[in-house]
Amino acid sequence: MRTLKLTLSYDGSRLVGWQRQAEGDSVQGLLEDALARFEGGHVTVHGAGRTDAGVHALGQVASVRVTFAHDPPTLVRALNAELPEDVRVLAVDEAAPEFHARFSARSKTYRYHVRNAAVASPFARAFVWHVPQPLDVESMRRAAARLLGTHDFSAFRSVGTDAPDAVRTILASSVWSSPSSSQAPVVAIGPWTSGTSDSGTLLTYEVTGDGFLRHMVRAIVGTLVEVGRGWRQPEQMDELLRARDRGAAGATAPPQGLFLVRVDYD
Amino acid sequence: MRTLKLTLSYDGSRLVGWQRQAEGDSVQGLLEDALARFEGGHVTVHGAGRTDAGVHALGQVASVRVTFAHDPPTLVRALNAELPEDVRVLAVDEAAPEFHARFSARSKTYRYHVRNAAVASPFARAFVWHVPQPLDVESMRRAAARLLGTHDFSAFRSVGTDAPDAVRTILASSVWSSPSSSQAPVVAIGPWTSGTSDSGTLLTYEVTGDGFLRHMVRAIVGTLVEVGRGWRQPEQMDELLRARDRGAAGATAPPQGLFLVRVDYD
Repeated sequence: MRTLKLTLSYDGSRLVGWQRQAEGDSVQGLLEDALARFEGGHVTVHGAGRTDAGVHALGQVASVRVTFAHDPPTLVRALNAELPEDVRVLAVDEAAPEFHARFSARSKTYRYHVRNAAVASPFARAFVWHVPQPLDVESMRRAAARLLGTHDFSAFRSVGTDAPDAVRTILASSVWSSPSSSQAPVVAIGPWTSGTSDSGTLLTYEVTGDGFLRHMVRAIVGTLVEVGRGWRQPEQMDELLRARDRGAAGATAPPQGLFLVRVDYD
Repeated sequence: MRTLKLTLSYDGSRLVGWQRQAEGDSVQGLLEDALARFEGGHVTVHGAGRTDAGVHALGQVASVRVTFAHDPPTLVRALNAELPEDVRVLAVDEAAPEFHARFSARSKTYRYHVRNAAVASPFARAFVWHVPQPLDVESMRRAAARLLGTHDFSAFRSVGTDAPDAVRTILASSVWSSPSSSQAPVVAIGPWTSGTSDSGTLLTYEVTGDGFLRHMVRAIVGTLVEVGRGWRQPEQMDELLRARDRGAAGATAPPQGLFLVRVDYD
């Protein structure tokens, strides 16, 4: 037996999410099916983060125990030849026998993109939440900073989830903005020189933590956008954390703006 | 009667192209159908560039003569409410009665994106041509510069097209490269900090001309990539232009890397 660490990137638009489901393509299912061909039988792949339908990954990490002997560069090529184009294996590495993508992870980093412009970009659709109303970025920044540290995040988890303990430690939580004209959409394929009247702003929320509850990042972003619209004060984040009441926080932001950026290990 | 100038952006992935077809969504057809609701009858929309299926636009321009009285800002909102998400109206402007999007155009600018990396990016799929083999950018740059000026572009047009005259003037023709890791795909939604082993390069070809023949930019790019792979010398471009033989030039590059960037008027 050997343990492999896989680093993956995927466009979650048409996927049912990380986890294998009865119907539809999941990242786990696609990977397990591809690996089963080399193994000559079922293998179980563990992912660091169970991304939902529509959520993307730039650097998801998975672990799997296998007996076949193919070397890592061959596996990268062979798996990418088997997988659909929206799921790519970026790297395969040999790992210690006890390595587990989820339980060995020290921290995970997610990014969420809000495009703030009058007209939605046709290129950005699958990768941002389009918010046409003006947003106060400075307030959002201050609200985001209040999540740093160790808190009970019950106010930002989906109702009916099973994790017994909602205490998580947030190591980084910041908002930044960058220019984003509708001509220079999320699909910023290089420097866009042509100018139109509809310039916009791309807001990025980046959060690093030792773990995340189900829908936690999207619930945080939904609340930050309500702060940006002036419906809430940044200081209210403290109160929300204390009250542990999901109904008191903002709506869950849509999945397509969310990216699992990377997973860090010791 | 009033003449309107529309500035449009579209993701061409699922469209049959600019021109109305018997089957499928075309930009012209979608716009004409949306405008017909305001006009209470058919209107004909003229586009500056007849982009093919799969080709995108950041700043396509269209003209239309109508009788209805809605003001431009209202029209932007109303048309975007009617159109599917992959086609957006960026601006509507009143134009001189004789304005015609195609015949009044002084020049058009196209951009083509080649992503040069070992592993294809799942996010860039719809917006780049993925070329895994190493490309010599300096040679491509020199080849591109040889197209400047007025030439007969018969070597770079699709066979069987109807334009009687293949002489066009190229005002700008350049190649540049920018870093593009697979984690920072075409979907460069801001600064990507996480690094992986598979960094790549995004090559952009930008060309401005007084007019373009059918498939001309894609035939040029197909030839430039053959120069980049070392199959042709940059100086051979002169010979191709002189010979006017489509069969002697390179293959037509795939549509999804091509963007109509802007149209300039006097």
